[in-house]
Amino acid sequence: MQLEKYIIDEHNNELIDKHRRNLEQVAEGINGLDAVLKKLAAFNIAIPSWALGTGGTRFGRFSGGGEPRSLEEKIEDVGVIHALNRSSNSISLHIPWDIPENASSIKALASQLGLHFDAVNSNTFQDQPDQKHSYKYGSLHHVDKAVREQAIQHNIEVINYGVQLGSKALSVWLSDGSNFPGQLNFRKAFQNTLESLQTIYDALPDDWKVWIEYKPFEPNFYSTTIGDWGQSLLLANKLGGKAATLVDLGHHLPNTNIEQIVSLLLMEGKLAGFHFNDSKYGDDDLTVGSINPYQLFLIFNELVEGMDTRGMNHSTAIGWMIDASHNVKDPIEDLLQSVQAIKIAYAQALIVDKKALTDAQNNNDVALAQEILQDAYRTDVRPLIAEASLRMGGALNPISTFRRLKVRDQLIKERGTQTVATGL
Amino acid sequence: MQLEKYIIDEHNNELIDKHRRNLEQVAEGINGLDAVLKKLAAFNIAIPSWALGTGGTRFGRFSGGGEPRSLEEKIEDVGVIHALNRSSNSISLHIPWDIPENASSIKALASQLGLHFDAVNSNTFQDQPDQKHSYKYGSLHHVDKAVREQAIQHNIEVINYGVQLGSKALSVWLSDGSNFPGQLNFRKAFQNTLESLQTIYDALPDDWKVWIEYKPFEPNFYSTTIGDWGQSLLLANKLGGKAATLVDLGHHLPNTNIEQIVSLLLMEGKLAGFHFNDSKYGDDDLTVGSINPYQLFLIFNELVEGMDTRGMNHSTAIGWMIDASHNVKDPIEDLLQSVQAIKIAYAQALIVDKKALTDAQNNNDVALAQEILQDAYRTDVRPLIAEASLRMGGALNPISTFRRLKVRDQLIKERGTQTVATGL
Amino acid sequence: MQLEKYIIDEHNNELIDKHRRNLEQVAEGINGLDAVLKKLAAFNIAIPSWALGTGGTRFGRFSGGGEPRSLEEKIEDVGVIHALNRSSNSISLHIPWDIPENASSIKALASQLGLHFDAVNSNTFQDQPDQKHSYKYGSLHHVDKAVREQAIQHNIEVINYGVQLGSKALSVWLSDGSNFPGQLNFRKAFQNTLESLQTIYDALPDDWKVWIEYKPFEPNFYSTTIGDWGQSLLLANKLGGKAATLVDLGHHLPNTNIEQIVSLLLMEGKLAGFHFNDSKYGDDDLTVGSINPYQLFLIFNELVEGMDTRGMNHSTAIGWMIDASHNVKDPIEDLLQSVQAIKIAYAQALIVDKKALTDAQNNNDVALAQEILQDAYRTDVRPLIAEASLRMGGALNPISTFRRLKVRDQLIKERGTQTVATGL
Amino acid sequence: MQLEKYIIDEHNNELIDKHRRNLEQVAEGINGLDAVLKKLAAFNIAIPSWALGTGGTRFGRFSGGGEPRSLEEKIEDVGVIHALNRSSNSISLHIPWDIPENASSIKALASQLGLHFDAVNSNTFQDQPDQKHSYKYGSLHHVDKAVREQAIQHNIEVINYGVQLGSKALSVWLSDGSNFPGQLNFRKAFQNTLESLQTIYDALPDDWKVWIEYKPFEPNFYSTTIGDWGQSLLLANKLGGKAATLVDLGHHLPNTNIEQIVSLLLMEGKLAGFHFNDSKYGDDDLTVGSINPYQLFLIFNELVEGMDTRGMNHSTAIGWMIDASHNVKDPIEDLLQSVQAIKIAYAQALIVDKKALTDAQNNNDVALAQEILQDAYRTDVRPLIAEASLRMGGALNPISTFRRLKVRDQLIKERGTQTVATGL
Repeated sequence: MQLEKYIIDEHNNELIDKHRRNLEQVAEGINGLDAVLKKLAAFNIAIPSWALGTGGTRFGRFSGGGEPRSLEEKIEDVGVIHALNRSSNSISLHIPWDIPENASSIKALASQLGLHFDAVNSNTFQDQPDQKHSYKYGSLHHVDKAVREQAIQHNIEVINYGVQLGSKALSVWLSDGSNFPGQLNFRKAFQNTLESLQTIYDALPDDWKVWIEYKPFEPNFYSTTIGDWGQSLLLANKLGGKAATLVDLGHHLPNTNIEQIVSLLLMEGKLAGFHFNDSKYGDDDLTVGSINPYQLFLIFNELVEGMDTRGMNHSTAIGWMIDASHNVKDPIEDLLQSVQAIKIAYAQALIVDKKALTDAQNNNDVALAQEILQDAYRTDVRPLIAEASLRMGGALNPISTFRRLKVRDQLIKERGTQTVATGL
Repeated sequence: MQLEKYIIDEHNNELIDKHRRNLEQVAEGINGLDAVLKKLAAFNIAIPSWALGTGGTRFGRFSGGGEPRSLEEKIEDVGVIHALNRSSNSISLHIPWDIPENASSIKALASQLGLHFDAVNSNTFQDQPDQKHSYKYGSLHHVDKAVREQAIQHNIEVINYGVQLGSKALSVWLSDGSNFPGQLNFRKAFQNTLESLQTIYDALPDDWKVWIEYKPFEPNFYSTTIGDWGQSLLLANKLGGKAATLVDLGHHLPNTNIEQIVSLLLMEGKLAGFHFNDSKYGDDDLTVGSINPYQLFLIFNELVEGMDTRGMNHSTAIGWMIDASHNVKDPIEDLLQSVQAIKIAYAQALIVDKKALTDAQNNNDVALAQEILQDAYRTDVRPLIAEASLRMGGALNPISTFRRLKVRDQLIKERGTQTVATGL
Repeated sequence: MQLEKYIIDEHNNELIDKHRRNLEQVAEGINGLDAVLKKLAAFNIAIPSWALGTGGTRFGRFSGGGEPRSLEEKIEDVGVIHALNRSSNSISLHIPWDIPENASSIKALASQLGLHFDAVNSNTFQDQPDQKHSYKYGSLHHVDKAVREQAIQHNIEVINYGVQLGSKALSVWLSDGSNFPGQLNFRKAFQNTLESLQTIYDALPDDWKVWIEYKPFEPNFYSTTIGDWGQSLLLANKLGGKAATLVDLGHHLPNTNIEQIVSLLLMEGKLAGFHFNDSKYGDDDLTVGSINPYQLFLIFNELVEGMDTRGMNHSTAIGWMIDASHNVKDPIEDLLQSVQAIKIAYAQALIVDKKALTDAQNNNDVALAQEILQDAYRTDVRPLIAEASLRMGGALNPISTFRRLKVRDQLIKERGTQTVATGL
Repeated sequence: MQLEKYIIDEHNNELIDKHRRNLEQVAEGINGLDAVLKKLAAFNIAIPSWALGTGGTRFGRFSGGGEPRSLEEKIEDVGVIHALNRSSNSISLHIPWDIPENASSIKALASQLGLHFDAVNSNTFQDQPDQKHSYKYGSLHHVDKAVREQAIQHNIEVINYGVQLGSKALSVWLSDGSNFPGQLNFRKAFQNTLESLQTIYDALPDDWKVWIEYKPFEPNFYSTTIGDWGQSLLLANKLGGKAATLVDLGHHLPNTNIEQIVSLLLMEGKLAGFHFNDSKYGDDDLTVGSINPYQLFLIFNELVEGMDTRGMNHSTAIGWMIDASHNVKDPIEDLLQSVQAIKIAYAQALIVDKKALTDAQNNNDVALAQEILQDAYRTDVRPLIAEASLRMGGALNPISTFRRLKVRDQLIKERGTQTVATGL
């Protein structure tokens, strides 16, 4: 299915008067409103193909209805999201769950919905039916060169798929690690990983990047070979200028100051991009901003400051993507909530009074520095998000429009209640 | 020093027009605005006497100027805070740091500033110069009955001071615990604690309560004898109806769901009160709402729902107090920020659409339940706080007024730059 | 397959001389050696039926060969373990994964292998194909009475299966919880759970117990309705004397002092039993003693002290069970390692000089108390375990005997390489 | 006071027969016993001057008797420790707590006790009475160049003291950080720190090193400017070959895999040294090996493997030091326990069957790899430590000899009960 703009407009019309008043009110306190709105309008967050179905845990999975049954239907779902929020103009594919049999028709479908293809993701954390070697004990870090070689070839194959689709980056997440002390020689595992990544790196097209994700635990519960930002950065530095570090918000030990890591990676020119989600305990993959929205704002505060300092383009210099698991919500609603939360945090960061903040920092006026940040954070910026969406042809309130239009009911009618999206 | 109302009014007058517009705007979306404002106006948070000086860590302390040199000056400082925010109408004393030599003159001073005395706090975590037995290995849990007896007598003495001042509760925090496996028999330590508390309990006046605080670690780093809410509740249940559990927000292990604990303690009729602060790592004692304001809102959401269900009076049924350490900020500014953050969270909780939330919960409509909570949370409720303060004779913006009036400069002039408040 | 005793004896004969020397050496330092050996010989740990196949994570599962294909084969595997270590004389079934079609023949098979049936486990964390209501939003805590009723009936059905097999306890682990703030009313969820458990409790035979397990997170990532020991104990106290709290070692927040919880539950007469495993990050379900064996020893130190104080029989008064997930090891080897680690910790706890420890505690001689505990812990008690096993007809070194006898190869020959055990 | 060898020998003589039997027994299972004993005999761990007095927390301090009142008495205490265990042949000074007024007489005193001077430690986390600028808001990272300059000069002065004493390294721990979001610009703080360290680095003598310590929190509770190993390594790499990373075991977030970090720092040639202690919650500074001795063994397992791979001398290539806080134990006993625990872990690591472990790793035989590690860990290696101590002229059981000789009583007689060591 495809959402027509006029339908969205109809719903907008009911909300427009109240929106205008709200916008006017909040505008009063904002310097450079138009620049803020332009940045918000230009900001897009990629949707991963695996996020469109219901997720689960090792204890089970409770699927919902109307899940996409094919790559085409996944792209359609992203089209629905983008039509509503005008902030999700790309999709990130996962190989082998989403092998595009016919790249040009897939590209045409996406293009028709205003979408393009973000980074492609390889998978060496699961065995595929026809696979020669098992990844039970790892892939790029494996003690056996034949297994490493197989995993390298898979990554190169993923790059090739990406080239056909117009992607510009390979995103690598390795589950390689160990469950028990003694299982692994950490140094050799690191060196094998480096050597494997070097071969993949050499196969990258000139205008491509490789994004190296880190994660402290799960599915391995004693060590992970790329376990923290320090290890990822060490690899990225050894590989070269096309390699950088990817930050997934849920991939940190308890109490980690993520915003400081973000600031330093930006300083080093090595921040590849983000996988957005929220969490309370581990890699919980919850809706962005559902648990700790202030942390999200603080991260965006570092991003805006750091990108501006380096003269980077907010919307294109870094890869933005959601990576969440929708276990108890409609996946599309969950993604709409996530994009909304990201844009709110971004808008709050944009309206921070940078000059005053720098002055307060230079005076060690800690109380004032906090006031300045919280003044931005406590502002109700939702009218700004709504206005940016409106200007781009989207909905003032994407999730309520989604419900009003009974999109899920139509998807169930089309696809049935018993479908299960490919993926986890 | 004492802040005259007319000076505060002068500053308010400069802000009043903008305030009126902001209030009008936010009022549009709120049902029962007047009831909300009344609750906000009635809401007060006690200030502990030890929070008026600069705090420190085991690595040192960097004092500020103009710290209060006596109990009288501490009361004056609370008077300043209350004059500004009209939400801090009581002070919580700590014995022996704040022994009131002349109770009636102290009461008169407080009363003149609109203040009364909240819970009194005992101290058996430090040795006093003239003390017979040491608390090096604990107090109420000590293996030696003589030490326990000394600590019991101290608590009874604290109750007596409290009676003179009009307090109605004894707040007990024990640092009793152990640093190493083997040091302690956990069961005997618990039973000694219970027996000691029973004697103190028996000495409580009829209209008094005893609040039992828990904390997992620090200053002991292997075990704490009242380490979590379960242990505190076990004690409170064994003691009887005048005993209940005190929640300090910083006294939890990483990732604890505090709001769930709050809900269950309310359910059991055993929630004594709160020590408010914020933290990222441990008992960091940071400004309330400076690290995770959404969690604070979620806690207030449980409080409002739970108190309303039990028909409890929001402002009096539970003890509200700040317990923070002001290491790098002016203590008064820090306290003003903390009270402000608490009132914001409370206001957001008050405007949650309870009916809609209950419906969403009954329908397992998880996305909608989140929308309802976040709709309240994302609302800029600061005009509500300002209006409630204004109606009570306080400042529209307490911290900016405090700075405008150069209160700290005057305090330094009166008290000097080298003062160190009694306490830690 | 079934291991004959003479084959085990053959392997023992090769090791017996060295064993004798080792035993003699360690015996020199132990008071009451014979009593220690008798306790070790009498100590058994149940094997859960779901632990005999390869486990996995939400990211996948890499199965091994020769996994049991039926309940009968699971019982055979436990028989192999018990023949080797003489410390695993019972099996804990999970319904519906292990429905015994013919109870009497199942009992006969078990009995022939020297096994009986430990607690039975219900499952309301997954939906079964023929189920009317879904557990997507919980079971015993569900907002909908019909769902609760279905889950109650399932638990009663599990009791009935258990009665046929001679079990004496129902073990209840609820995954009920929430993923997002707002999803749940904590209080109502708790009260629904209590009401549901009360109905199940009323259906228990007179000589049965119900064990209430707690867990802070996973598969729900914001709250769990029975989330910690305090919540479990609250339920157990409200239910009555047949209800008690089950401790799974992996079900705690970071840094929890588990041994203190164990001590207090014993004090209250409410420690139902244990699910043993080890973990570094969360509910990692790793081999017992593979990550933090000292903590395991400290827990047993509390168990021995607490059970002796209450005059409890070590081997029968509490339910002992392994609950682990064998993702990268042969499940039988993993279980043999786990039982070995448990018996080592138990033996170390048995040889602690209790009198000296109590004296050191009473003198606050912290350094000495540590020396006493570590003296026991640093002792190489493996000869004691070996001797106890030998006396019961088991192997001196179960895991090396398992390998020598190429048991897994035979199981693969019988069952094939592509089997997948029923369960997760 | 000074312990004469003959007194120690007298006590040894009472224990020697049993020791011989124990040694013989454990020797049976160890390949290359003599090489192991030689390594153990050569292994020394430095004692920091601040560890000889009773430590405390922000809540207070309970001093013991007989604490050293001067640098000379601190050196005497280290002399006592070294006489007993022959494994503590150096002392690490802290400036300004231990300014050596007369370097040559201090060196002579140390030399007479068989001691030399390990790394010198600077202190910019506290203000000194005569100091021009305050470190309230940091030192090397400070926004104000004058403060940075003062802190740089202090570090250079510390180097100069060290040169006089024969030290070869400057150990830098910065408490610089922030307590609140907004207080700091992370990037500028990092860059200021780098620039400051560069100036200090340039002042290092040719044969000196600078050790850069990291710590995630305390005394700052939102961010620390050198917060983790990645940030320290980034600085060390930018500085050059004389800079490396110092690992303090307590300076990690919950659940960190420290042994993996150790392995990677060794791989990079950037592991400067260790501050040993143990902890359960944060930087608890407890006795080494008192909480998680298996983790300590795993760290030594990486150290031995990594140092051997790089051909490093175990006893000299890396800086070994204890850094603990003795709040409830006699400091000397606590240090003796710590050194003992370190040597036990080291001995266990030395006797790991490396060849078999490598084979198991290459075969992904996870269960066997665990067996190999635990076989070494479960061995009672105390006779090896005792024998190495004996050969070097130390006590078979240092702590029991310390008690037998009533050393503390003599120190109290000499120094009194009311002394407080300089330091925290």
